[in-house]
Order: sequence, then C-alpha cells, then structure tokens
Amino acid sequence: MYRSHTNGQLNSTNINQSATLSGWVQKIRNKGFMIWVDLRDRYGITQLIFDEERTPKEVMEIASKLGREFVIQVTGKVIERESKNPNIPTGDIEILVSQLTVLNAALTPPFTIEDETDGGEDVRMKYRYLDIRRKPVRENLIFRHKVAMAVRNYLSAKNFVEVETPYLIKSTPEGARDFVVPSRMNAGQFYALPQSPQTFKQLLMVGGMDKYFQIVKCFRDEDLRADRQPEFTQIDCEMAFVEQEDILNTFEGLTRHLLSEINGVEIGEFPRMTYDEAMKRFGNDKPDIRFGMEFGELNEVSQHKDFAVFNQAELVVGIAVPGGNSFTRKEIDALIDWVKRPQIGALGMVYCRCNEDGTFKSSVDKFYTEEDLATWASVTGANPGDLICVLSGESTKVRSQLSALRMQLAEQLGLRKKDEFAPLWVVDFPLLEWDEETQRYHAMHHPFTSPKPEQMELLKTNPGAVKANAYDLVLNGNEIGGGSIRIHDKEIQAKMFDYLGFTPEEAKAQFGFLMDAFQYGAPPHGGIAFGLDRLVAILGGQETIRDFIAFPKNNAGRDVMIDAPAVIDKSQLDELHLNVVVQS
Amino acid sequence: MYRSHTNGQLNSTNINQSATLSGWVQKIRNKGFMIWVDLRDRYGITQLIFDEERTPKEVMEIASKLGREFVIQVTGKVIERESKNPNIPTGDIEILVSQLTVLNAALTPPFTIEDETDGGEDVRMKYRYLDIRRKPVRENLIFRHKVAMAVRNYLSAKNFVEVETPYLIKSTPEGARDFVVPSRMNAGQFYALPQSPQTFKQLLMVGGMDKYFQIVKCFRDEDLRADRQPEFTQIDCEMAFVEQEDILNTFEGLTRHLLSEINGVEIGEFPRMTYDEAMKRFGNDKPDIRFGMEFGELNEVSQHKDFAVFNQAELVVGIAVPGGNSFTRKEIDALIDWVKRPQIGALGMVYCRCNEDGTFKSSVDKFYTEEDLATWASVTGANPGDLICVLSGESTKVRSQLSALRMQLAEQLGLRKKDEFAPLWVVDFPLLEWDEETQRYHAMHHPFTSPKPEQMELLKTNPGAVKANAYDLVLNGNEIGGGSIRIHDKEIQAKMFDYLGFTPEEAKAQFGFLMDAFQYGAPPHGGIAFGLDRLVAILGGQETIRDFIAFPKNNAGRDVMIDAPAVIDKSQLDELHLNVVVQS
Repeated sequence: MYRSHTNGQLNSTNINQSATLSGWVQKIRNKGFMIWVDLRDRYGITQLIFDEERTPKEVMEIASKLGREFVIQVTGKVIERESKNPNIPTGDIEILVSQLTVLNAALTPPFTIEDETDGGEDVRMKYRYLDIRRKPVRENLIFRHKVAMAVRNYLSAKNFVEVETPYLIKSTPEGARDFVVPSRMNAGQFYALPQSPQTFKQLLMVGGMDKYFQIVKCFRDEDLRADRQPEFTQIDCEMAFVEQEDILNTFEGLTRHLLSEINGVEIGEFPRMTYDEAMKRFGNDKPDIRFGMEFGELNEVSQHKDFAVFNQAELVVGIAVPGGNSFTRKEIDALIDWVKRPQIGALGMVYCRCNEDGTFKSSVDKFYTEEDLATWASVTGANPGDLICVLSGESTKVRSQLSALRMQLAEQLGLRKKDEFAPLWVVDFPLLEWDEETQRYHAMHHPFTSPKPEQMELLKTNPGAVKANAYDLVLNGNEIGGGSIRIHDKEIQAKMFDYLGFTPEEAKAQFGFLMDAFQYGAPPHGGIAFGLDRLVAILGGQETIRDFIAFPKNNAGRDVMIDAPAVIDKSQLDELHLNVVVQS
Repeated sequence: MYRSHTNGQLNSTNINQSATLSGWVQKIRNKGFMIWVDLRDRYGITQLIFDEERTPKEVMEIASKLGREFVIQVTGKVIERESKNPNIPTGDIEILVSQLTVLNAALTPPFTIEDETDGGEDVRMKYRYLDIRRKPVRENLIFRHKVAMAVRNYLSAKNFVEVETPYLIKSTPEGARDFVVPSRMNAGQFYALPQSPQTFKQLLMVGGMDKYFQIVKCFRDEDLRADRQPEFTQIDCEMAFVEQEDILNTFEGLTRHLLSEINGVEIGEFPRMTYDEAMKRFGNDKPDIRFGMEFGELNEVSQHKDFAVFNQAELVVGIAVPGGNSFTRKEIDALIDWVKRPQIGALGMVYCRCNEDGTFKSSVDKFYTEEDLATWASVTGANPGDLICVLSGESTKVRSQLSALRMQLAEQLGLRKKDEFAPLWVVDFPLLEWDEETQRYHAMHHPFTSPKPEQMELLKTNPGAVKANAYDLVLNGNEIGGGSIRIHDKEIQAKMFDYLGFTPEEAKAQFGFLMDAFQYGAPPHGGIAFGLDRLVAILGGQETIRDFIAFPKNNAGRDVMIDAPAVIDKSQLDELHLNVVVQS
C-alpha cells in the first residue's frame, strides 16, 4: 500500500503521528527555504511542508523540482498548521515531510485541474481522464453511483430481481434506428444492440419473474440532438399481476425514497394530471410545476373584436408573468425576438402590462378596452405588477411555443430552483400519434402498450382519440420515467401491429416469439423505465446529462478521447463478409 | 393488484381469512364432484379446491375447463387441508374458491414445467420463457441477483465506486476478435464492443478514481467452445496506489464475504501457489485442491531401467488414486482408453497396484522390481490400496494429460464435492507466452501487465522467463478471477508494445490515448476481473454457466428464441454504407 491515510483523513487528532500519503501535486508555493505543496487525491487535499531546517537536504532538492500533477508519495509527521484553513477537513494540520518519492512525473496538463477550470468542453473531453480529477466531475460520478446503489437496494428489498438481458439481439425497424453488429459466423446476418430490453422483460413476465428490474445500457442510432447520447442507461422495470395503480405506487415509492435518501427532501403524494390537462394548462406533457404561469385560453375573451390575428387563430392563449410589468420595453422586445426565433417559430407576441394601480396597457390597445384586458388578467390569473404574454395560431404549435416561452421566463426569473423538487405523474397518454410524413399512426409509447380496455372499440372508428394505460413521471419539467400497461393477449397484439401498418408477415418475423409467448399463458403486466443519466443529473440539481457520464460522446457520436469510431482492417471486414461503400 | 397474497405465503395462521391469488395452473386433479388445482407463481404453490357442494356452479364449470399453464385469478377462503403436505410452506392449507377468472388461456407447453422436465436443451432454449417458469432455472436467476447485490454492497461499503464505461469503443486487433458496430454518421468507420473495460478503468485510475468496480457485459467474437458465450458478464475492478498484496487482500475479502453470505461457508486465509508450482504439482494453472492426487515426478526413479518409453520421455509423472487398487482390470482398461482419446492424446498409461499387504503389481513388472515400485509409491504418496497412474512424454503435454486424468478420476470418485469450497491464489504468472503459429511472444494476461520490476533486464535476454505481477483466483478448479499490476509508465508501456510486435505507429493508433494519459501523472495501479457467470455457477454448486444466464446463446452464437442474428433490410445496409459479400 502506497499510503497509510488518504488526503481527506488527517486532522488535529492525528498530530505528532507519522503518516504516508500519496496523490497528485495540486499546488506548489516555493519560497526557497520553505516549500508548501497541496497534495490531492479523490478524498481531499492535505498540505505538505518542506523546510530547510527540518527537511533532509535531498528531499528538499526533489521537492524543489516538483511540478503540477506529479504523482508523489511522502512520509512525514502530522503537525499543527500555523495558518489554518477552516474550509477543508484537513485544514488544521500539515505534513512535515521526511521522505519523498516521485511515483510518476507529469507534463503540464492542458487545462487547470481546479473546480473552475480554464479548459473548454472540447479539450476537457479529449483529456477526460484529467477532467475526472476535478472535484465537480468526480463528485458527479460518485453521486451517480450512490443513486444507482439506492435504486438497487430499494427495489431488491421490494423483492425485485435484477436480471441481465442480452445485448446481442435482433433488429426491429419499428421505432428509432438500431445499431447493428455483423455476425462473422453467420454471413450476411446481424445482431442489433437493444434500444431497450422491452421484449425481454415482457418475456420474463411470461416466465413468471413477476418483479424485474435492470440498470442497463440502451442504444439508439439517432441523429444526435444536444445532450443526447447514442448509448444511455435505463432503470428498466416490469411487474406482473398488476394494474396501472400498482405501478404508479411502486415507483412513486422508489422516487420518494431517492429524494429522501439522496436529497434529504421529503415529498408526500405525487400529483397526477392527464396528458390532455397537461397540454391545456402547460402546453407540454412534462410540465415544470415548481412555478405557476399556467395557460389561460383567451379565445372567448379576445375573438369578439377586430383584431384579425386573434380572430383567425385556432387558439389564443396567454400566461401571466409574475412581476413582469417591471420589464423595460427593451426587455419585452427581446422576449418578442426570442419567440420569433426559428427554433420557437411564433409570428409575434401580444403583451399586456398589468399596472400596480389596476390599469392595463397592452400592445393591442387599438382593439381592446381596459375591460377586455381585465378579463384577460382574470383568465390568466394576472395580478397587478404582472405582464401577460399572449400567443396565437394553430393549437398544437402555439401551445408548444408558449410552453417554451414559459420555461424561458422561469429560467430568467430564477423560478427553476435546483433544490426544489416537484414530481408529477402525467397519465392517460394517447395510444397513437399521427405521423404526417408516413401518413399513418405510430405508437406514441411503443407497440406493446395496451389501449384503455373500454376504448378497444373506439380504435376502429377514431384511433387518434384512444387513450392508453401509459404514464410518465415528470420531475422539474423533465420526463424521468415512462411506461405503460402492456398487451398480454396475442389477438390484441396482432390487431395492434395491424393498426400500426405491419403486415402479418412482418409482425411474425419481428415479434413472432413474443406473440408465441403470449399463447402459453402470459399474465397481465406493465412497467416503467427511468432514464438514469437524466434522473441523476436532476437529483444532482443539474440538467446536462453529459456531466454525469464518465466517458460521454460528443454531439457527432464520437468519443474524442479514444477517437472512435474508426476504420477497421480490411481483414476484419472480410471476416465479417462486408464491403464498405462510400459515395464519392 | 391481482392478488392479496402470493402463492408461497398462506399457512395455517391465515385459516378462515379471504384471499385473492393469481398464477399459473401447475396441476389439475378432477374427480368430477371435486377439483383440485395447484396454483404456481414465483413464490410457491398453493392448492385450490373446488367442490360441487361449496363452490358456485358457474365457477365449477370454468374450473372444469382449466388446462395446464392457464393464468387464473381466484378468490376464496383459506381452509385447513385434509391431507397436509409437509414439504411446502403452504402445505397445511388450501383455498376454497368462490370466484375464478381466467386471465389468459394457454396452449399445452412443449415440455413439462416441473423441476425435472422432459424437455431437451434445444426446445427449452427456444421457449426459454417457459423454462424460466421452472423452479431450478428461476432460482438460479434469483441466486445470481443475490450474488451481484452482495458484490455491489461489499465493494461499495469499501469505498469502491461503480462507474459505467462506454460500450461503443474502438477496435483493437490485439487479443480476441472484436464485435464491431458500423457507424452510420461516419461512413466506413466502426465502433467496437468492449472485450473488457481494461483501458477505461486504467484511465479512471489516471483520473484519480482510485477504487473502481463495475458489473459489466463484455463481448468476444470467438469460435465458441462448449459453455462459452459471445457476451458475458464481468466484475471488473481496479485500484490505484496499491501493490499486488493489497489487491489480493481486498478481493480475498470479497470472495470470503460471498462464501460466507451466500453459501454460509467460513474460510480462513486463502492458500497461494506460484504458477510454476501449480504446474509442477497439478499440471494446471487452476488446480482443484479439494482433493489430493498431487503429481509425483518419477524420472529419477524410473529412468534407470530398460523401459524405453520412460527413458525417452522428458517427463515421467504419476498420481496415486486413493482406493484405486479396487478398480477391476476392465475399469483400468477404460481409464487407459480414456487418456488415449484424441481430446487427451496420451499414447498409453502405466499403472501400479498398491496391494493392501504392501506388495505392488504393475503393468511394467518386466522392467521394475517391487523395490522400484515402492519408490514410485513413496514419490506419489501412494498408500496400500491405491493405484498409481503414470504418464510420460513431453513435459507440457504430459502434465496437461495427467491433469485431465486427475480431474476425471476425482469426478468418478466423487471428490469434487459441490458444497466444499477450496479457493486458491495462483501468482507469478509468466509475462509472455510463445505462440507457435505467429512465431512470436504474446502477452499471457494482456499488454498492460507489468513485468516484475526486478526482471526488467531479463526481458532483453530471456523474455519467456520473465514473470509478471499477475494472479488468478481459482475456486474448485475454475479460474474465477484474474488480474495484474499494470504498467503506469509510458516508456515501459511503449517497450512492451515493441516486444509484442507492435510498430510504434500501431501502438500509437490503438493505444495512443492511454500512453498519452500516462504522461500526465498516472499512479501505480492494478486490478482484477471476475467472470460473474462462472462465479455464480460455482457458488451455486454447478459448472454450467448457461444455467445461470436468463437468455443464453447456443454454441453457434445464436439466440434460438428470438432467432438472432438475422438479415437486415437493404435500406439499413445502405444507411450504414455497407454491402454484404457472401461467397457463393
């Protein structure tokens, strides 16, 4: 062992003891006759002292040549420090070094290894192993471990069994794109990496393993958006002999446990909201309910005048921004510019100042009286001092635009408090969604989701109106989990594939094994999956999942540290029966 | 919730209570006026009773039509059973059913869902979801979960952090074959699936995460031998600022904990043996030391006579089979045939009976006197009543042959007791092994393993003699873990790649990031990896890893249940810039 203690361990109770420490040189102050070194490891920082009078000459010599990030081992006596540092646990002591070994020298790192670094994202990713030496990154990884352990111990204590499902499975063109793996032993055939263990966990239910979970890597070959990873981690769960209510209760329990154990936050029963209600009140199926600014629909109180923009709109909808009347004209113009950006896509924004004296002043005073505006305030819940922001247009689009504005304003006003946690169940999701591009319905959750049993008939006449026993768990405006009650009947599953445009042959080729399984006694079952990366980030008070992944890929799906993907040998390709065809 | 209790829960304390149960129909006895059904779930079996007098007519009706493996839900009263079954926890009671719902009918399963099934391996694999309903398979999976949880909780309590390393990495032609994953976004480039997280865990050490572990899937595209899987699970561990001794102690602690917690077996300090000693005493680097039959080298006491076979042999070596003198001539002939099988490859076997009266009788009496044979007995440790088996030939081959014979005899004699556990550290493995085919040295462990520091010079003159700080943990004749102290110096690593036949360009292209990392202050480090599949099987008293994997692949690497690998669409291939080239 290269050390008797870690660098976070020694304090005044150890004074006069001898200690051997190892770690990295964080900082050096060299006054010639005296040298101080901050020695760092995963556990903390301990100050070392070398001085002309008390330190052997040859040790002094080596110490004078140390550089940042050198790996060293020292032995010395724990002594009381003259100027104490109350900010760190070891701040009362220092080590008077008598022996010093350089275990490894170091080049000057390409960025500073400090909590606040001077390194940009790119260089930190290339040297991720150095980035991990920084406390914030290291603590994020340790935090992730703690969350995963808490999940495992909680579910295990509730009789859930973690079962490992295979990574080399079969490609199913439904849903996102698969990553595939060519088979050397079966020319022209491919495995696929799982987008989720969905069918396997359902087969485990058929197999009687009635409470399953797994913390598992999943893979999606999608065009990457910001903060998406081609490989991500899921807490995948399934239960048999349950109804939706049982699943909500079980995983509300898990989430409550995590908030309590990890964040020390006690939360009572989680509120629930239907999908339709969430869309109406927040324009979003994952509303952040830590703050208000709920939507007020203004059609009735705004479409009786000559304002053509509103009159032609399918939906006129506004929010009351608390204290927003204090915004300057310039600030309001900036908001208008913001909603008109192509990413948001609004054509404009109407606003109405709610003055402290109870009067109103809007950007459309030409069309509306003070009385009209008072009804707007009443519908949006605006108080004196607020600002009403109103968008109009096609319902789906305008809801999404106003939702984006609401989040932007909340961010701006500091309403998205990182130490406040507001979970919410969103339930009764639509079973299907219409895809303009392919001109057919797609499964909103996935093709194994059960329609509400009482709406089976509606599927024939109005498929878009059918709701599913599907639910999302939302935390602070992020979907952290989603799931559904599954179909467990072969006939219904076959019908569902039919609605989704599968021919019977396609359904059989891709999911025949599942439908076969349903014939041999499948129990009613359902489940949920949490995105671990996001869950951990949010519990950690952040939203960037990359900060909680040890070795993330960049937005182009590359690992810039190891430089992957990369070309492979011709001989490897030959063995795999493959040719690369690159368009010139 | 479809049940108030599980099928393993109710007993005489519940008599007269009402209960709702769900599960699968295990067995039906229909006497017309009375029907008994054994209802099964993961937790056990509960007997249901339906009778003409006490059960509603319509319920009786449905009950009479139940079939094996139907999924049903029943409600009824817990009553005392007339003929009790003391073998199961619910054996004192039965449920007098008043309500019965068939949740799902079932086809007759293709094999019986019993502890001892009539299904062969192939059909059970195709219908693995039915196989999992069988108690032995189910219990194996639950056992695996328990072992994994015990590992995680032990290591976590010792300050190890589980860090997830990436699955989409870079192909490195050294070692076994990689599975590769074509990149759609980078035409002609490929990710590879990790054979182990080796380089990433070393980078974590460079990153200061000084105690790492991960239970992680690994992938090797090898021609499959019996009981090898293309994807397998590893308990992967690494520590920084440690020497070999620290690693052995830490993971001896883990293994001792598992044996105690999982098997209730308390084991003291694990014995240690050098690789050379293991080869000499047992002909094997993973000896099963639950029994003796150690090798006795007989060159000195057998090469002084006219027996040409022995005289020409590099090594003459024997074992004493306890009680083997009781073998009939026919049994001994069978042993001789066994060692002459092509898989073993011996040319013959000499034997010597050690009679109870102290006399000897050998198959080579023509050449050796009783006195000669007595020295054989003394060298092999044979007692009266034993049988000495002697093989001869080229040392490496003959050791391996005699080792196989020793294991075969132990199996035959019942010496490999499944509830006895004999761990053993094998240390001081050679650094390199000579490969006849490529006519060069390969790394015996992997290219990151450190030679013994004091033998660095020997590398230049006699590379084959250099030992490494590499070690295996052996349990009951199986390697359950292996690891080494790593190189942490760029220059030594570069030299090692050179010895292994890498050009500097190849080394840089494949492992440049690791050697770069070593320049920025790499600490001394080392680690170990356990094969979880095998560890679990052995702790479970078995040796077939497939029995402890939920969805294993067959020996051709196929998942016969989902029928993977499979062909993929032309459009998928096009997106991946690939053509399949199949030789006609």
